[in-house]
Amino acid sequence: MEVKEAAGRLGVLLPGMGAVATTLIAGVEAIKKGSAQPIGSITQMGHIHLDRKNNGDNYPRIKDFVPLARLEDIVFGGWDVYEDNVYEAASRAKVLEPGTLLALRSELEAIKPMKAVFDKSYIQNLDGTHTKQGATKMALAKALMDDIISFRDTRGCDRLVMVWCGSTEKYTEVADVHESLAAFEKGLKENDPRIAPSMIYAYAALKLGVPFLNGAPNLTVDIPALVELAAQTRTPIGGKDFKTGQTLMKTILAPGLQARALGVKGWFSTNILGNRDGYVLDQPDNFRTKEVSKLSVLEDILRPDLSPELYNDLYHKIRIEYYPPHRDNKESWDNIDIFGWLGYSMQIKINFLCRDSILAAPLVLDLALFGDLAKRAGLSGVQEWLSFYFKSPQTAPGFRPEHDIFKQLTVLQNALRKLMGEELVNPEGLTYAEEEITA
Amino acid sequence: MEVKEAAGRLGVLLPGMGAVATTLIAGVEAIKKGSAQPIGSITQMGHIHLDRKNNGDNYPRIKDFVPLARLEDIVFGGWDVYEDNVYEAASRAKVLEPGTLLALRSELEAIKPMKAVFDKSYIQNLDGTHTKQGATKMALAKALMDDIISFRDTRGCDRLVMVWCGSTEKYTEVADVHESLAAFEKGLKENDPRIAPSMIYAYAALKLGVPFLNGAPNLTVDIPALVELAAQTRTPIGGKDFKTGQTLMKTILAPGLQARALGVKGWFSTNILGNRDGYVLDQPDNFRTKEVSKLSVLEDILRPDLSPELYNDLYHKIRIEYYPPHRDNKESWDNIDIFGWLGYSMQIKINFLCRDSILAAPLVLDLALFGDLAKRAGLSGVQEWLSFYFKSPQTAPGFRPEHDIFKQLTVLQNALRKLMGEELVNPEGLTYAEEEITA
Amino acid sequence: MEVKEAAGRLGVLLPGMGAVATTLIAGVEAIKKGSAQPIGSITQMGHIHLDRKNNGDNYPRIKDFVPLARLEDIVFGGWDVYEDNVYEAASRAKVLEPGTLLALRSELEAIKPMKAVFDKSYIQNLDGTHTKQGATKMALAKALMDDIISFRDTRGCDRLVMVWCGSTEKYTEVADVHESLAAFEKGLKENDPRIAPSMIYAYAALKLGVPFLNGAPNLTVDIPALVELAAQTRTPIGGKDFKTGQTLMKTILAPGLQARALGVKGWFSTNILGNRDGYVLDQPDNFRTKEVSKLSVLEDILRPDLSPELYNDLYHKIRIEYYPPHRDNKESWDNIDIFGWLGYSMQIKINFLCRDSILAAPLVLDLALFGDLAKRAGLSGVQEWLSFYFKSPQTAPGFRPEHDIFKQLTVLQNALRKLMGEELVNPEGLTYAEEEITA
Amino acid sequence: MEVKEAAGRLGVLLPGMGAVATTLIAGVEAIKKGSAQPIGSITQMGHIHLDRKNNGDNYPRIKDFVPLARLEDIVFGGWDVYEDNVYEAASRAKVLEPGTLLALRSELEAIKPMKAVFDKSYIQNLDGTHTKQGATKMALAKALMDDIISFRDTRGCDRLVMVWCGSTEKYTEVADVHESLAAFEKGLKENDPRIAPSMIYAYAALKLGVPFLNGAPNLTVDIPALVELAAQTRTPIGGKDFKTGQTLMKTILAPGLQARALGVKGWFSTNILGNRDGYVLDQPDNFRTKEVSKLSVLEDILRPDLSPELYNDLYHKIRIEYYPPHRDNKESWDNIDIFGWLGYSMQIKINFLCRDSILAAPLVLDLALFGDLAKRAGLSGVQEWLSFYFKSPQTAPGFRPEHDIFKQLTVLQNALRKLMGEELVNPEGLTYAEEEITA
Repeated sequence: MEVKEAAGRLGVLLPGMGAVATTLIAGVEAIKKGSAQPIGSITQMGHIHLDRKNNGDNYPRIKDFVPLARLEDIVFGGWDVYEDNVYEAASRAKVLEPGTLLALRSELEAIKPMKAVFDKSYIQNLDGTHTKQGATKMALAKALMDDIISFRDTRGCDRLVMVWCGSTEKYTEVADVHESLAAFEKGLKENDPRIAPSMIYAYAALKLGVPFLNGAPNLTVDIPALVELAAQTRTPIGGKDFKTGQTLMKTILAPGLQARALGVKGWFSTNILGNRDGYVLDQPDNFRTKEVSKLSVLEDILRPDLSPELYNDLYHKIRIEYYPPHRDNKESWDNIDIFGWLGYSMQIKINFLCRDSILAAPLVLDLALFGDLAKRAGLSGVQEWLSFYFKSPQTAPGFRPEHDIFKQLTVLQNALRKLMGEELVNPEGLTYAEEEITA
Repeated sequence: MEVKEAAGRLGVLLPGMGAVATTLIAGVEAIKKGSAQPIGSITQMGHIHLDRKNNGDNYPRIKDFVPLARLEDIVFGGWDVYEDNVYEAASRAKVLEPGTLLALRSELEAIKPMKAVFDKSYIQNLDGTHTKQGATKMALAKALMDDIISFRDTRGCDRLVMVWCGSTEKYTEVADVHESLAAFEKGLKENDPRIAPSMIYAYAALKLGVPFLNGAPNLTVDIPALVELAAQTRTPIGGKDFKTGQTLMKTILAPGLQARALGVKGWFSTNILGNRDGYVLDQPDNFRTKEVSKLSVLEDILRPDLSPELYNDLYHKIRIEYYPPHRDNKESWDNIDIFGWLGYSMQIKINFLCRDSILAAPLVLDLALFGDLAKRAGLSGVQEWLSFYFKSPQTAPGFRPEHDIFKQLTVLQNALRKLMGEELVNPEGLTYAEEEITA
Repeated sequence: MEVKEAAGRLGVLLPGMGAVATTLIAGVEAIKKGSAQPIGSITQMGHIHLDRKNNGDNYPRIKDFVPLARLEDIVFGGWDVYEDNVYEAASRAKVLEPGTLLALRSELEAIKPMKAVFDKSYIQNLDGTHTKQGATKMALAKALMDDIISFRDTRGCDRLVMVWCGSTEKYTEVADVHESLAAFEKGLKENDPRIAPSMIYAYAALKLGVPFLNGAPNLTVDIPALVELAAQTRTPIGGKDFKTGQTLMKTILAPGLQARALGVKGWFSTNILGNRDGYVLDQPDNFRTKEVSKLSVLEDILRPDLSPELYNDLYHKIRIEYYPPHRDNKESWDNIDIFGWLGYSMQIKINFLCRDSILAAPLVLDLALFGDLAKRAGLSGVQEWLSFYFKSPQTAPGFRPEHDIFKQLTVLQNALRKLMGEELVNPEGLTYAEEEITA
Repeated sequence: MEVKEAAGRLGVLLPGMGAVATTLIAGVEAIKKGSAQPIGSITQMGHIHLDRKNNGDNYPRIKDFVPLARLEDIVFGGWDVYEDNVYEAASRAKVLEPGTLLALRSELEAIKPMKAVFDKSYIQNLDGTHTKQGATKMALAKALMDDIISFRDTRGCDRLVMVWCGSTEKYTEVADVHESLAAFEKGLKENDPRIAPSMIYAYAALKLGVPFLNGAPNLTVDIPALVELAAQTRTPIGGKDFKTGQTLMKTILAPGLQARALGVKGWFSTNILGNRDGYVLDQPDNFRTKEVSKLSVLEDILRPDLSPELYNDLYHKIRIEYYPPHRDNKESWDNIDIFGWLGYSMQIKINFLCRDSILAAPLVLDLALFGDLAKRAGLSGVQEWLSFYFKSPQTAPGFRPEHDIFKQLTVLQNALRKLMGEELVNPEGLTYAEEEITA
């Protein structure tokens, strides 16, 4: 496989410049200044185990192993329904300390969102004012394409990538208008209400060959029409829904319980958060989208089809509660009812005092860099090897998503090894004396 | 590789017939009667993914894949410092409900412990009364060998395996008396105080070619002398310390944090339990042994050598508190201080209301069955592929232990595949369309 | 004040014979047999501090201080929408261990519920089958009165008391039909849909002079019409909603925070439970009734009117989640965001693994005994001194409820002292040398 | 009772100018500037209920009710074993945000500790360098008295009060040298090793008639010799050990459990903290002092003597763990095993993420102001009415301490009412209609 070099500037386009996007941008600026580190980003901080038989570094940093765009070459842009510049939006989000932001003020003030495509019927709890007007959804898509081209040209970008950082839209299912590119384009022209704003962004990106990664649980590119378009324009896509916080913990813990053949009869998950995301999800239609995304993970990991005695009766319930005192400090509380030997019950309680945007920001960075890598490697369509980053991984039609984070990691690492022509790694010995096994 | 059939009866010998051993024995009896299931035992309940290209079962039960002794063919025996039969000891341990025990009363009453080798200097908080007397430690070892042979003959066993279920001994380090078999045997004859009771059991077992697995953090077989003996008699060995409860959770969670390049600056772990194990560990010398075993896991998983920015400052502290109101219901509470993007702090709290013996019992069963399998497969010495079961896995000299439970599981499963001549499994595709990846 | 003796038998009538009522009845039977103790009942286990200047017992048991009916003299009866006898219903509720119930089987089987007055529009999630039919609500009320008289006569009761142990009805507010006894009786005859089943029970009881205590958050006797009737027939009444679990904890903790002038900016409370109560509350209309009851407690205790800097911005949110794996083991989780010196934030998390019916049963007993005491003391109308037992205490018109459990306790104890002609207790000294202050 | 006016300046002298003292001082400066509020201080923020029959304010602020020194009139001074000024020490303690401290820099830099009396045998984990030398302990006491007089004169103070904010000393018990003032002064002259540094401070204060309040669990003034001296010089004293964090929660919760006659069979309390206090307590001798202080609270509140069925078997265990990652953010975790109706078990877990110095600072302020008030009111000796503030309240000889925080509050409020000639408050009515009861 041949991967093109990452020469020139990479434009990272972010629909939705709220807490996550501004935390990402401020962070990258701080890292470029040397005042912070990209913790949580495996492209920047992670290592990969190679089987180089003592010829060279067996554990290089990923960014030294695969040719990724450098942080210095990234240019940020995006859209938002509010006209705050990134400094103002980041201050309002209250994720980063005022001192941190102050030190980056001029860089952040320079980044101003473009007018957003907004449809209140998809997000009832927001009232966007900084929005595009257009006679049809197709007109809006074209306006976005104009934005993208203009951004590329004025900012001197060689390549672009788009990562959706906007809100969760109301719950929808695939309908006929989504079934083919032809139907979809007809719908755009006829203002079909089943075409969500996020789909318009994705359409604009894919039409221009810009990789699109979806950080929200919205359908967006997970519809046949846009998969078709991605194939047509040879563009990588991926989604859905950044895997942070509670679901991250769940996909770490559940494989462990499964590995030990421990039964699970109940898993209750609640979340309290007070940021814009929490406010949007306070609307039942929007919560439903998130709920579906979050509910899917256990069944795939635990496989009640293989072990009905252990997992058939699992009662899984998820709640997200808007709770303003916590702002962006999302807190989750899980109660897990497990059972062991002879069916005796035990309980696990997990209380994760996390920070939503702090966990999400490095995922945006990684997805932008890997999305760009995929493009340069000539890959297109659904990038299953990026499932590691998503709550509800999009797959090629007919395949089950993989949710086990450790299997996802193996797939991601093997993908990188394969791209670079390295041997895959798999422990083969019965004893460590036969080989070094700690991949 | 050729594996002999599991014909005839397997004698499972348990030094230490307290809560864990009696929970195991009662459980196996209940399972044989069809009134309970062997939850938590992967030999009995677990599946293995095979790559059989649609020819046959790709996810067979492990017990249907490798030739293991059947539960019906197991005969239990053991030693204890108290003379209670298994019914009495199980009742006293209060792990299983009285109704469960009552239904198995006659089977359990029939199993009476043999007199134990006991040395109060190793376990100050116990006062054994049902103990062997002998002029030298060698004499005690011979008495144990007599017990083993007599048990085998009177109970009609074809094969034997020994799993240490006794208490944690005081902390000791490898000394010259442990460095060679010759020095060790000299020490046995001269009553060297540095030879612990558990070593005498292991010596007796290995001398007779009986596989020995060590469920406590004691040194026991993790000394050159007994590794030498195991090689001499072609006997499998393994240890140390059943991985249950808090450490189980730790080796599940830490790989997840590491996978995401999240930093860890503190991990505080406390445990409260009120069983005999807790009482023994209330003695600082004995706690020290357990502490060393439990402390080792994080460093191996997180690799501060590779990622000093993330893990160099990790402060790891472990406490075990004797707390009688909880009896065998061991409860752990962990506070984990992590940090992400730009160094911002987050916290994870895990409260595991577990049952010590319920988690441990199936591990004893698996280790007995796999130990016997290893013997029949002609394997000998340290069985690293059983690291999955241990808090502090014994390795061949010069190798690092693997603590990541998911890597341990891969090693275990690959070992089984290799024993049975199946292909190893490793996802190789960039997209699921190329192959089915959910190993 | 004169209090009549508690001579003869006391009939305790329970509308709703589910988990709470059957746990109470089984418990009283077990206590009478000497096999258990009435833990949690302050009439039985509590002491009261008297100021008797060393003449006699300064800390007698409450049951030795005020003339209460003896447990031996209690006769239980009641109504339910299912025809299970108390043994069957208790077995189904799975609160008490099978062994406990088995030992009481004959006593419990003897108690069979009478047919209930049921209206599905008030409790959508239940489908009662064992119900009364009647042309009008007045006819149903008369049928209940017939039941009461018949129960009294056939069981030889000298006195009666009724405690509502039924489900939470849908949310309603006081309407004109509830404003006067005349309007209410007209409504009964005309089948006014705003008259809830619980009101019909209360009407029947009060009409016959039977004290009525309300363990659910339903309006029931908290309407002018029934307060008027209680005055007319000189009958004690009280409510609403047994104070157990989370609200109990809240009214213990909030006074402590207030005492220390610590600010509170958020209080998030969630509950998971899997019993019939949880299932009923899974219906939003019914949850609303409970929510209103539970939300009221903090404002009264914290007094934002006096301390707006500390409590004006308090965000209080309560959730109840139906979660079958927990059955009657109600578990609550609270996150409390407090702030101290200079406004710095702190957090308190409380996880209460309680048992709903175990906490409620002794409250039913106490309320029955104190309700009967009030009647014998000639008290009538709302018994504010029983606020100690209720989440949302009913008061005389125009008065604020008291929620602080420690002030409620003082009021209850002073009421008992006053009934018995003892001095009230209040520490008056600046130093303990002046007096013994530990009331 | 007559209380002198609070005219002129009040010198607040603090032995130990670490996290607590500097948080107090910085806070008072910030409050004086109007940039923060004295949350947690009941002298400043608390209200008191008066029974003024609608003549005037029934809920005045305490500071408007009793004549306290104004914050503007407070002058801070103190001693420490390190020579950092208050700005440096506060910065090192990392309790307050850098921005907060920067705004107060000049005021804080102006306050420099005097050289401390230090004895490493009492606090093994500290190495003081900024210390007094003296031939005898009496000479050190005189040096302290010189410091006090010099401070008073140079700073123009009309009155003084001393509050111990220093570390916990090693565990000691009352010995003959502490039994009388004569023996104590002889010991001072002869350098008796049983006289702790904190006692030398207290001696110096009392000798000069300066009220002394003890914020650590050290014996200090809780010895007959110093009680005798306090009586001689008519000086108020009080102690021991600021009631913050876990013990605060315990004395809030335990009265609630006792009020409901719920049994308690176990209470396990652990704490993790990383400040200087935690480091000192990492030494077993010093931890013992704290442990004794913390263990005493439950027995007094629960009264196993009155209710042996509920509290006789209570197993109470307390741990404090030094855990640097948390710095001053002390975190406690409690597991409480309770039982209710028929003996059924339940559990309460409390996780308090508190800030040690934020909770303690306002207590120092209140004790200084109330200690000064007591002096002006002519009170002397042990001030039991201040028990509200202490983990282990000092009492007059022969009296039990009161630990129930609600009873302590009643005593404190009654003391204030009595000092000011107001009626005491006690609810006397059976119904609220008879009176307004919500004190």
